[in-house]
Amino acid sequence: MRQRWFVPERSGILSLEGAAAPYAAIWGRDVLTARLYPKYAATPTAGVHPATPQSFPRKYIFYGIIMTLSKETRIIRDAKELSAFVKSVKHDNKTIGLVPTMGYLHEGHLSLIRAARAKADVVIVSDFVNPTQFGPSEDYATYPRDEQADLAKVQSCGADILFIPTVETLYPNGQGSTWVEVQNLGNILCGASRPGHFRGVATVVTKLLWLSQADYAFFGEKDYQQLTILRRMAQDLGCPTEIIGMPLVREPDGLALSSRNVRLSPDARKQALSLSRGLKKARALFGQGCRDAQKLIAEAQSEIAAQPDTEIQYISLAHPDTLELYTQQVPDQVMMLMAVKVGGVRLIDNMRMDERC
Amino acid sequence: MRQRWFVPERSGILSLEGAAAPYAAIWGRDVLTARLYPKYAATPTAGVHPATPQSFPRKYIFYGIIMTLSKETRIIRDAKELSAFVKSVKHDNKTIGLVPTMGYLHEGHLSLIRAARAKADVVIVSDFVNPTQFGPSEDYATYPRDEQADLAKVQSCGADILFIPTVETLYPNGQGSTWVEVQNLGNILCGASRPGHFRGVATVVTKLLWLSQADYAFFGEKDYQQLTILRRMAQDLGCPTEIIGMPLVREPDGLALSSRNVRLSPDARKQALSLSRGLKKARALFGQGCRDAQKLIAEAQSEIAAQPDTEIQYISLAHPDTLELYTQQVPDQVMMLMAVKVGGVRLIDNMRMDERC
Repeated sequence: MRQRWFVPERSGILSLEGAAAPYAAIWGRDVLTARLYPKYAATPTAGVHPATPQSFPRKYIFYGIIMTLSKETRIIRDAKELSAFVKSVKHDNKTIGLVPTMGYLHEGHLSLIRAARAKADVVIVSDFVNPTQFGPSEDYATYPRDEQADLAKVQSCGADILFIPTVETLYPNGQGSTWVEVQNLGNILCGASRPGHFRGVATVVTKLLWLSQADYAFFGEKDYQQLTILRRMAQDLGCPTEIIGMPLVREPDGLALSSRNVRLSPDARKQALSLSRGLKKARALFGQGCRDAQKLIAEAQSEIAAQPDTEIQYISLAHPDTLELYTQQVPDQVMMLMAVKVGGVRLIDNMRMDERC
Repeated sequence: MRQRWFVPERSGILSLEGAAAPYAAIWGRDVLTARLYPKYAATPTAGVHPATPQSFPRKYIFYGIIMTLSKETRIIRDAKELSAFVKSVKHDNKTIGLVPTMGYLHEGHLSLIRAARAKADVVIVSDFVNPTQFGPSEDYATYPRDEQADLAKVQSCGADILFIPTVETLYPNGQGSTWVEVQNLGNILCGASRPGHFRGVATVVTKLLWLSQADYAFFGEKDYQQLTILRRMAQDLGCPTEIIGMPLVREPDGLALSSRNVRLSPDARKQALSLSRGLKKARALFGQGCRDAQKLIAEAQSEIAAQPDTEIQYISLAHPDTLELYTQQVPDQVMMLMAVKVGGVRLIDNMRMDERC
């Protein structure tokens, strides 16, 4: 396999305190040491900061020109090419981390890729808007796509492969030739208003897990029901991949990150904050000792219903592992999940009631 | 992993031509060299015959005492234990061959195990009467079982693992928690009279493929529709396992081997020969140039219907790859498939019309 190299976007971020360093290592994997050309001659010591770029303290300053090389993310579109790559990786006894996405990546996705980067030797990100999980009246055709932006983001997180299959590649005998379906769990909550949605998800994820032969697969807890269903599926089908859930990522003002957020008008975006506010209010009530499901739901509901353009599809309380729904008394470990249309855009959100903010 | 050793049944079969050999290797894998004690002193050369025991020419003779050791087949009942074994095999970059069976093994199964033994480094045979592929009025409870006999047979073929899971092991969240279903192909032929049958097959085979992480999986062409469905499923789901079909095995009198044959009364067994006779007669007619589906089917049908206790479920002509059914004109490559109840026992059989006997 021919491997090209490139200079990543964040090359300039280095950890230096005070003086200069003749050589310094950069965080992360796939990185070479870099030579620094000091502005001021000083002791040749460098403090290498272990933090990720996000948490990098501003007081550190960059003193020199850094030459850093990282592997370029390779785009694969063909299933056979992916299989050949996977085979070579497995032959070297390296581990594979898979991050299945529908593209149009945001910071939530990137947190999954970074988690994969930290845990696995090789990281595969898939970028596929899966038609079989959209209903006929849903937004498959208009779902946002931006392959070039995705590539740059995936690259900055150090992924090895960006897998962008066509529909024909993943459905060689047409859509719906073979289905994988998790019973019961797929019919409640989001499944109630999106029939067939989770069947499409389970089917495409089975394909991606088998094609990638991943040791670990990473999913966000924002799609909490999806995560629960995929865990159940993997257990039911003896899938050797470890399914790893990562925390939901929010904007500073509380909005849960979603590729669909770009479709919110400025006004709708403001109204959409009522989801996280409602969840927090319910959590506060739970923290005060309330275990009445109807009261907890009403607390969130009133916050959201106060907005003019919101249409609540469901607000439910469920067991965090089994998604067993509670309509009367809730136990001490419980999760609130909701789907709300805000200005015509369907948003989901969730929060553990028993966790401190 | 503790590995015990045993002297296999066929230790005595060695390839020697003429004189004796001080040391000789025995066919197959997992075999040690053996010391021969020659009856007549002669040149110390040995011709090692590459054939399988079945094709071993009678003119070769055995001249000495052979001490040969082979690995004992290990029984695994637990999914986690199997996964750990598979992991260690994969770590050594060895290939795995899987032979999924419902037990009560006959020579047809053993031909699959020998094919696996010849192709893969490690052979796993599974022995599981899968409840989800039986209908409520079918013979799940009375399906023949004989674990000890199976173990001896599997061992004689040199399998490494005999996997005998419980129903709870393969269905940790109950039967039908997750289904894998191939559309269309599963509703015709046997699927028409056995609704849900192939869904149960596809589901359990997915589990076994994932648990075993097999490089190759072997299935008999006797269950031709099953083989076709599993090939489609593997292709649809990106399964990296190569699905390998092996020829149907018959008794000398033509009866297709089946675990259910033991349930035939002596009289029914005689009547059951009409299936292969009917297939052969249809094939002869096809060989004479007949391409009329109705005439070919009638040829087989009349042979079977002439028996008093036969009840034909279907006799059909289909494309060997796609199972597309032909009711009028048939092409030059075509297969006849049938299911017939003989004395209350459901039997299936099939034959390529375009192959010479």
